[in-house]
Amino acid sequence: MKVRKCMEKDVAPIMTGYWEKAEFPFDVVPKLGALRIAGGTIKGYGCPGLSITGSAISVAEVARVDASCSTFILVHSSLAMLTIALCGSEEQKNKYLPSLAELSTVACWALTEPDYGSDASALRTTATKVEGGWILEGQKRWIGNSTFADLLVIFARNTSTNQINGFIVKKDAPGLTVTKIENKIGLRIVQNGDIVMKNVFVPDDDRLPGVNSFQDTNKVLAVSRVMVAWQPIGISMGIYDICHRYLKERKQFGAPLAAFQVNQQKLVQILGNVQAMFLVGWRLCKLYEAGKMTPGQASLGKAWITKTARETAALGRELLGGNGILSDFLVAKAFCDLEPIYTYEGTYDINSLITGREVTGLASFKPAASRSQRSRL
Amino acid sequence: MKVRKCMEKDVAPIMTGYWEKAEFPFDVVPKLGALRIAGGTIKGYGCPGLSITGSAISVAEVARVDASCSTFILVHSSLAMLTIALCGSEEQKNKYLPSLAELSTVACWALTEPDYGSDASALRTTATKVEGGWILEGQKRWIGNSTFADLLVIFARNTSTNQINGFIVKKDAPGLTVTKIENKIGLRIVQNGDIVMKNVFVPDDDRLPGVNSFQDTNKVLAVSRVMVAWQPIGISMGIYDICHRYLKERKQFGAPLAAFQVNQQKLVQILGNVQAMFLVGWRLCKLYEAGKMTPGQASLGKAWITKTARETAALGRELLGGNGILSDFLVAKAFCDLEPIYTYEGTYDINSLITGREVTGLASFKPAASRSQRSRL
Amino acid sequence: MKVRKCMEKDVAPIMTGYWEKAEFPFDVVPKLGALRIAGGTIKGYGCPGLSITGSAISVAEVARVDASCSTFILVHSSLAMLTIALCGSEEQKNKYLPSLAELSTVACWALTEPDYGSDASALRTTATKVEGGWILEGQKRWIGNSTFADLLVIFARNTSTNQINGFIVKKDAPGLTVTKIENKIGLRIVQNGDIVMKNVFVPDDDRLPGVNSFQDTNKVLAVSRVMVAWQPIGISMGIYDICHRYLKERKQFGAPLAAFQVNQQKLVQILGNVQAMFLVGWRLCKLYEAGKMTPGQASLGKAWITKTARETAALGRELLGGNGILSDFLVAKAFCDLEPIYTYEGTYDINSLITGREVTGLASFKPAASRSQRSRL
Amino acid sequence: MKVRKCMEKDVAPIMTGYWEKAEFPFDVVPKLGALRIAGGTIKGYGCPGLSITGSAISVAEVARVDASCSTFILVHSSLAMLTIALCGSEEQKNKYLPSLAELSTVACWALTEPDYGSDASALRTTATKVEGGWILEGQKRWIGNSTFADLLVIFARNTSTNQINGFIVKKDAPGLTVTKIENKIGLRIVQNGDIVMKNVFVPDDDRLPGVNSFQDTNKVLAVSRVMVAWQPIGISMGIYDICHRYLKERKQFGAPLAAFQVNQQKLVQILGNVQAMFLVGWRLCKLYEAGKMTPGQASLGKAWITKTARETAALGRELLGGNGILSDFLVAKAFCDLEPIYTYEGTYDINSLITGREVTGLASFKPAASRSQRSRL
Repeated sequence: MKVRKCMEKDVAPIMTGYWEKAEFPFDVVPKLGALRIAGGTIKGYGCPGLSITGSAISVAEVARVDASCSTFILVHSSLAMLTIALCGSEEQKNKYLPSLAELSTVACWALTEPDYGSDASALRTTATKVEGGWILEGQKRWIGNSTFADLLVIFARNTSTNQINGFIVKKDAPGLTVTKIENKIGLRIVQNGDIVMKNVFVPDDDRLPGVNSFQDTNKVLAVSRVMVAWQPIGISMGIYDICHRYLKERKQFGAPLAAFQVNQQKLVQILGNVQAMFLVGWRLCKLYEAGKMTPGQASLGKAWITKTARETAALGRELLGGNGILSDFLVAKAFCDLEPIYTYEGTYDINSLITGREVTGLASFKPAASRSQRSRL
Repeated sequence: MKVRKCMEKDVAPIMTGYWEKAEFPFDVVPKLGALRIAGGTIKGYGCPGLSITGSAISVAEVARVDASCSTFILVHSSLAMLTIALCGSEEQKNKYLPSLAELSTVACWALTEPDYGSDASALRTTATKVEGGWILEGQKRWIGNSTFADLLVIFARNTSTNQINGFIVKKDAPGLTVTKIENKIGLRIVQNGDIVMKNVFVPDDDRLPGVNSFQDTNKVLAVSRVMVAWQPIGISMGIYDICHRYLKERKQFGAPLAAFQVNQQKLVQILGNVQAMFLVGWRLCKLYEAGKMTPGQASLGKAWITKTARETAALGRELLGGNGILSDFLVAKAFCDLEPIYTYEGTYDINSLITGREVTGLASFKPAASRSQRSRL
Repeated sequence: MKVRKCMEKDVAPIMTGYWEKAEFPFDVVPKLGALRIAGGTIKGYGCPGLSITGSAISVAEVARVDASCSTFILVHSSLAMLTIALCGSEEQKNKYLPSLAELSTVACWALTEPDYGSDASALRTTATKVEGGWILEGQKRWIGNSTFADLLVIFARNTSTNQINGFIVKKDAPGLTVTKIENKIGLRIVQNGDIVMKNVFVPDDDRLPGVNSFQDTNKVLAVSRVMVAWQPIGISMGIYDICHRYLKERKQFGAPLAAFQVNQQKLVQILGNVQAMFLVGWRLCKLYEAGKMTPGQASLGKAWITKTARETAALGRELLGGNGILSDFLVAKAFCDLEPIYTYEGTYDINSLITGREVTGLASFKPAASRSQRSRL
Repeated sequence: MKVRKCMEKDVAPIMTGYWEKAEFPFDVVPKLGALRIAGGTIKGYGCPGLSITGSAISVAEVARVDASCSTFILVHSSLAMLTIALCGSEEQKNKYLPSLAELSTVACWALTEPDYGSDASALRTTATKVEGGWILEGQKRWIGNSTFADLLVIFARNTSTNQINGFIVKKDAPGLTVTKIENKIGLRIVQNGDIVMKNVFVPDDDRLPGVNSFQDTNKVLAVSRVMVAWQPIGISMGIYDICHRYLKERKQFGAPLAAFQVNQQKLVQILGNVQAMFLVGWRLCKLYEAGKMTPGQASLGKAWITKTARETAALGRELLGGNGILSDFLVAKAFCDLEPIYTYEGTYDINSLITGREVTGLASFKPAASRSQRSRL
């Protein structure tokens, strides 16, 4: 409720402007900080220590009004902060988490590379041991918050072990350059960056001791996918609320739009989808709390919910007619914002194949080499 | 578990044969009776007094193996028995419910008429008061179990009050004839009948005192819709189980079907749908138990779940390839059985407009008279 | 028009009965024979020599009333007769085609095997050269018309060359047994058989000299897929016609069903789909006539049209409400009949991957061996 | 081909920038003018006099690269110029059409009002006869090109006859103000305006003598809908071309994306949709050329094609993964641009109900008054 009030009163009125210009609303950060939701489920170190359900609901309430805001927090909190909390040393947690929890400093999380999106585990950025620290070389792409983040959690391949390691890099590290990715159609407020690292030195103290293989990032990703799944839930709740109001207020042919069969049917379909998504998201939290959530379940939740939300947003956009293409009415913005969410943290296809592998025991990510395809069909 | 075991062991092996011939397996009735699920949530009178959730799960487990069986029980239990329990006198309950609970006698429930399907409340069958009882005149259509039911719960319009009343009619009542409806593509085991009543006398003792308007049937329909919603859930659970096994066992191109991307994706979509349907059905039960379920919620649950199940069955049928058109493999049978379920107890359209009315406050069932349509579009 | 008249007058009234009993209407065969459509595009040998467009329209008109009838003719004409016409010797054509064209004899076409459906080219039935002929050993499955066909065109792997060869086998050949496949949910009139061949002798004269590899069957399949694509077109035309009439005649809530927004919208969607399917089918014929049709185009046409028809049939079934589950009203029958058509002559998936290979140059039929799937996702 | 070359060489490289800033590329106008496609099917008066098919293909080729460009031309040519050509006097045609055909002057077309979108025929702007001319009072909304158009074709209700009349208003007419509509998610290059007319005088010479009722605008709308239907065709052609190239070039998991089953299947679905849309659009042109196209057919074509294109764009956006949310890769832009097209010139719902009225003879635009809804359901 506190989150909803803040979002509706302080955030909603100004977001369309930022979205249109694809700029970040730095003055909103202290307000989000005051909500005390960053850090989510992390206990101690100034973090709120919410239950995963509580944390999920806070994500949904933020996303209900503005999905970009919720992505900003997720990247910062459920990816970067959580990685430090799960894989950092006690010193690192004490040093970094408190100010991140207040949003006095902002973090980002860099896994994806220009040539390794869905196939993230094959990443090429290297970390080479040198005296007193490590040298990072490589590129990252699509990294949310990276254009202004104070801390960058970066994954790289250890050149001796060939395993994935994690590092905390500071904004002003020599050799680090970040370029904003322009021309996005969705989550336009989120600042995604292309990162280039040339001979970037990271002191030993800033290596995350708990990241020793790609499996360690998977632990973070599983929790993060639960949170990501709650974004489309919140977005769809917002879509229903606006459509409901719009259909009651707007008239055509002498009657409120809500009196037309074709409109009622779409509205009811949206409502049915919202309820189902909410329950699927809620179940995921309960499984997680019981320590029973598998990676395949997180992937299925994220995939199923974003797919359903996409259909929901298309219905909502249609219900608003011409006003459904103006971001002022929020549904158009929601319609666009769902697209990157559908694709990030595992595309729909990748997540469904992760679940597919879990339930069948057979991996099907890679196609067979063409030379083995000798069918005569 | 008890229900699942009985269904898999005693019922599954013989149903394809009955389904193919569109005949009713009378020898299965005692086995279903022994499960003690008829009467569902009714307390006392020899009924099991299950929670609505428990009753719902039993429906799903029956439907998982054979949807016709579950419809047979639903009509008997959640429509006919429940009407007697909610609207009957103490004498009527004592007299009829115990043997119905054992399935030693079977009941049916007759509301729909040839010309009044979706618009059920406009029914034309009449009940006229005469000395010592009532005379029923009219027709009913689609009435499940009616060709062999011992008791028929029949709704008719009281010719003095113009309100809907309810009656218990016996199988052998003079003037009552029932003809089996042939050529169904789904739920072929369920025996639907066309009922004709010519001067059928019902003694005063067999008028249900609690049915005094169409609203009284709505109370029964709301509970019944929850139960009906659990049929597609059970059916879809069965579809998933069979598809999962089939994809692992059947090979093509030298690999199990489960190893193909396109197949895994369909299987995962089925699984996601099953989970969502299950949760929506479960939530409906919890609302009901808390005394908070509205008619619009029951309608939305039934509509949303059957729509999702229909998509699920189409995916499942496709996954089984050629074997997906043989009722032996159960998925084909499930695919067909979903069609009547999608349409009965309120079509998808009617249920979504009932919910639409509830959330918008505006009814949109009837079209405007054509003469009022003067648009120049 | 001639075909439509015969189908509506002579065939329509009796088909529901045969469909329900899953029996073949032998008395309809002479009427279909008199239409002179068997043999389709084949010139000479008593065949009608229609244009492919003319032949396609005749298929659609038959399917518009009864899809099983159209499958019966397609198997006989576009598979068996066409194989003889394209790959048979002059003697074989003269000997077999004239009576097949009159439907005084009936043929079937046997490629699919129990373990080789989508992966048909891997078939295992063997043909071993012996003195004066060949010995066939193996099994075939799903073969339409095979339970009563006079001639069976059978494909087998030549044990010396390892290539696919084709043979004409007679109904009463010693060692040949055919068992009817029971319990189909669609095309119930079509008699599909499981064929077992044990030491079946075929004289040299009945080997088809033009079948020397699987590619030779592909030529037949490409034409046949065009014809198969016209079945769902015809079926969907029939669905539109019946729905249109039904919505005008049936009333609910005091108005014809055609006056309701939700019904009009479904009807219009059906009409839009029918037009698009018709045009896609017509274009395929024109490409074929111009000698430009590729296998990928035939596969795309078959896949796209059956997919669209499936959606169309689901809408039509819904429009007919309760009567939509009775095969008497034809739409229910059409709904079921589309399922085997969606799957036979290449499932939707296989046909779309055939087209995919053509447009991308990359085959993706087979999954990679599991051991090569080392992703850490 | 000429259009394609110009669009790919001169227009494609600069559009993302304009789209992002939601600005109009005035320097592109002379290039489009030089293509000689404005005026389309109009014969004489400096217009190209293309066949409707030729005109349609030119629209598609423009839309293939940039949908905003094609909307700019459509508004100018198929709405404004065509209204002058069909309903203008000889003097008006001679005076206005030649420079419009060269795009030395630009026109817009103003029908929609803030409160009358789908119910356009109920418009409220008034035209009152005064000495030497007319006084226009009222508002228009969503009018494309209106912020900079030299000529505005405006529809208003004649205060004596109560019928709709049409007028040509000049850019600098006193009392006329136009405000740009900001924050659009699609067709961002198109400048839509809110028009306010306060006491705007139009001389008698600038009243269009041929517009005497709403039916006269319908004639223009029918042709225009054919043209609008070709926008999504062109857009989808562009989507296919880009996806095809992208899948071949981009690699993941060591193989081109084109080698994955799930990707091939989406690509093939896009191709199937493009072919069907193209054929439906082409058939509409042929009907029009034969003088047989009804308004219901134009509406069906527009509705069916935009619906199919919307599905196509969603598939395409997904195929491009993360790059599918950058307007640089064109598919993201196309995805957004389809939304206004889906809604303008009759929403999907309105167009399908127009067709529904034509095929059933029953109008269903308006809902019944709530007081008539006495169902007890």
